[in-house]
Amino acid sequence: MRTDATHDPALQSWVASANGEGTDFPIQNLPFGRFRRAGTQEPWRIGVAIGDQVLDLRAARDEGRWSAEVAAALAPLAAGDLNTFMGAGSAPRRAVRAALSQALAQGSPQQQALASCLLPQSGIELTVPCAIGDYTDFYTGIHHATTVGRLFRPDNPLLPNYQWVPIGYHGRSSSIVASGHPVRRPLGQAKAADAPQPSFGASQRLDYEVELGFLIGPGNPLGQPIAIGEAEEHLFGVTLFNDWSARDIQPWEYQPLGPFLSKNFGSTISPWVVTMEALAPFRAPLQRPAGSAQPLPYLDSQATREQGAIAVRLEAWLQTAAMRAAGEAPVRLSSARADEAAFWTPAQLVAHHTSGGCNLQPGDLFGSGTLSGPAPDQAGSLLELTSGGKEAIRLPNGETRSFLADGDTLILRGACERAGARRIGFGECAGTVLPALA
Amino acid sequence: MRTDATHDPALQSWVASANGEGTDFPIQNLPFGRFRRAGTQEPWRIGVAIGDQVLDLRAARDEGRWSAEVAAALAPLAAGDLNTFMGAGSAPRRAVRAALSQALAQGSPQQQALASCLLPQSGIELTVPCAIGDYTDFYTGIHHATTVGRLFRPDNPLLPNYQWVPIGYHGRSSSIVASGHPVRRPLGQAKAADAPQPSFGASQRLDYEVELGFLIGPGNPLGQPIAIGEAEEHLFGVTLFNDWSARDIQPWEYQPLGPFLSKNFGSTISPWVVTMEALAPFRAPLQRPAGSAQPLPYLDSQATREQGAIAVRLEAWLQTAAMRAAGEAPVRLSSARADEAAFWTPAQLVAHHTSGGCNLQPGDLFGSGTLSGPAPDQAGSLLELTSGGKEAIRLPNGETRSFLADGDTLILRGACERAGARRIGFGECAGTVLPALA
Repeated sequence: MRTDATHDPALQSWVASANGEGTDFPIQNLPFGRFRRAGTQEPWRIGVAIGDQVLDLRAARDEGRWSAEVAAALAPLAAGDLNTFMGAGSAPRRAVRAALSQALAQGSPQQQALASCLLPQSGIELTVPCAIGDYTDFYTGIHHATTVGRLFRPDNPLLPNYQWVPIGYHGRSSSIVASGHPVRRPLGQAKAADAPQPSFGASQRLDYEVELGFLIGPGNPLGQPIAIGEAEEHLFGVTLFNDWSARDIQPWEYQPLGPFLSKNFGSTISPWVVTMEALAPFRAPLQRPAGSAQPLPYLDSQATREQGAIAVRLEAWLQTAAMRAAGEAPVRLSSARADEAAFWTPAQLVAHHTSGGCNLQPGDLFGSGTLSGPAPDQAGSLLELTSGGKEAIRLPNGETRSFLADGDTLILRGACERAGARRIGFGECAGTVLPALA
Repeated sequence: MRTDATHDPALQSWVASANGEGTDFPIQNLPFGRFRRAGTQEPWRIGVAIGDQVLDLRAARDEGRWSAEVAAALAPLAAGDLNTFMGAGSAPRRAVRAALSQALAQGSPQQQALASCLLPQSGIELTVPCAIGDYTDFYTGIHHATTVGRLFRPDNPLLPNYQWVPIGYHGRSSSIVASGHPVRRPLGQAKAADAPQPSFGASQRLDYEVELGFLIGPGNPLGQPIAIGEAEEHLFGVTLFNDWSARDIQPWEYQPLGPFLSKNFGSTISPWVVTMEALAPFRAPLQRPAGSAQPLPYLDSQATREQGAIAVRLEAWLQTAAMRAAGEAPVRLSSARADEAAFWTPAQLVAHHTSGGCNLQPGDLFGSGTLSGPAPDQAGSLLELTSGGKEAIRLPNGETRSFLADGDTLILRGACERAGARRIGFGECAGTVLPALA
């Protein structure tokens, strides 16, 4: 793994809250997001999270002292345009990261100038971090694919293509919302196995899916694949992602062309993008079950095998309406590590997606697919945790859940930890279920 | 059907070429497109096709005399922004149509002013007509679904959900190109039935699909479905659409989440958008096989049953490299009528797509799915015409085709004709197959 001074675990910031043990946003992280002051209709600005503050990059560009290279790299960010910065590749990103790391470090001569560019995160609202042109959802969680496959095909849970093809499908970009936006329970068609015909009504099997989101940087022209060895350069950063799913709509609609309305009523992304540079200390080997096929050459490289995965611990938390009313904190439903869950690396997804010539563009989003660990309590969906809804889980307050109820708030959290590195986190990816329309 | 003076078949234009029998673009059509002078890097402008000319709407806005309402409606068009105009709904579209119809009609006092705003279509290049945010491909062609289903499941060609659910899936927006852009044969994974494992290489079963494209107008906020009775208001216009497909990549990758790389290497759209107003004389009843299920209420209305379909004749034409070298014209592979092919109307697709709350945005694209007529020679793909590649078709020059060869140019054409109305056409949707990368 390539680390540098920006990863030094001893590095402290003059923003005091960034030095606390519990923060997701120490100076080693520096994720990007789009924000405005809460309750205003101001244009969205780009900021970097530091402790419990956000550094406004428009103000910082104007108030700070920057090299010509950094000032040029900051220009699109100061204009509120993360996509152009994403498209510019890793060199300006590294330059901005190094400059912000120095400027926010304890003892920096820039402290006084930049202190005026901070806003408390409690006073801002955040939106989707960039313009997402196309969104693709993959299916890299092999334990998820196996468990779900077993529900449908007990004798043959994993289809033969799974270990050869990074299975993915196109998703809906327009309905991706940022953490905090409520999600309305969808209406839709479903058909009970014993019913003579389908009926239309509110989904009774609303679920979440714990995923990572990979945001694309430069991308490629149509017709020109990205080789596996170049694929990391086209990754900008990582978010949390909840692929809300209606499990009763899905089985009735999905043959032969895949999930559609069961997924496109809303997806939630966490607003802070953790860059590939921040994740450098947490890259990990690709783990695959013994006996798995060797990837075809266009999906294989020593680098992606040895450090292509990302060691993020992912957690799902639930707070029901009753818990909220009683002042009870959310409860954890599951915890799993992405690098123990994913059968394919992000670089393999980039190489596969472009292998036929499909063009990726800055701001495009890949979902990892549900990242469930190998143990039953590491499952990243209620479908898995409740064995297809047959075994409801019991919450500490006595409530039970087979699927999500109206008023439930589902929260994803994620963090990277390892010895010798400063822990970094992803913030929250939260959404509350609104009742279906009448 | 609601027609008005703009549909009068006797109406002639002072643009002489618009009055010829063969033109796709008489004064009764007036489709929108994005163009620039060929060979330049000028910004894309919005124009309206009239005969063999294009009326530059930026120049026309400045040179013509318009009511305040029309001038306001023309403002985004003059700025090169079709999406904003699409989002404004049918009222400004009708106002612009009526004004252009009058201004381009024989005897118009505006002739002298607007003649300077015409450019010959031979001197322009056209691009994708608008910014396409999200693209969804449907599967409305029941004869296509039946024929293709029979290739995979001889005893059960149509799945049980087909007559209840307008089957669709999300497609890739970034790789949609305008007519004339070449399409490179994709590389990809495929696995022969008797092979022990898949291999990676150039697709050997490259195909086309004859579709209509439906472009969305205003759209809806997330969480607020569009009722079937309101759905037509959210349709802006119609194009031709070729959903190029790699038939060897598709069967290996598509389970369980649907087609992906077999489709996303490129799709071709015709550059002129024929508006819903121009299509008014050609609306037709929804035709369904006897015994088909009655649509669920959210997909049903008298209006969509009686005039929800669109009577477009669709044709696929092929010119091979050898034919081109010999100066031979393209040959017709098939001809079918959209209203005899589609099991669902565009309004039903809008109502279904939004029924769970998914938001549509101006410029979003729906593909109809392959529109094959009921007879074998009306099939809109080689997969169907050659019975899955088993029975090659023979061309007049002696060449045969099971699937497309490098250098083949595939051309879609479409036109609406009926007694008492002026014929209107869609122009061409053409693409030439480039060899795969080495």
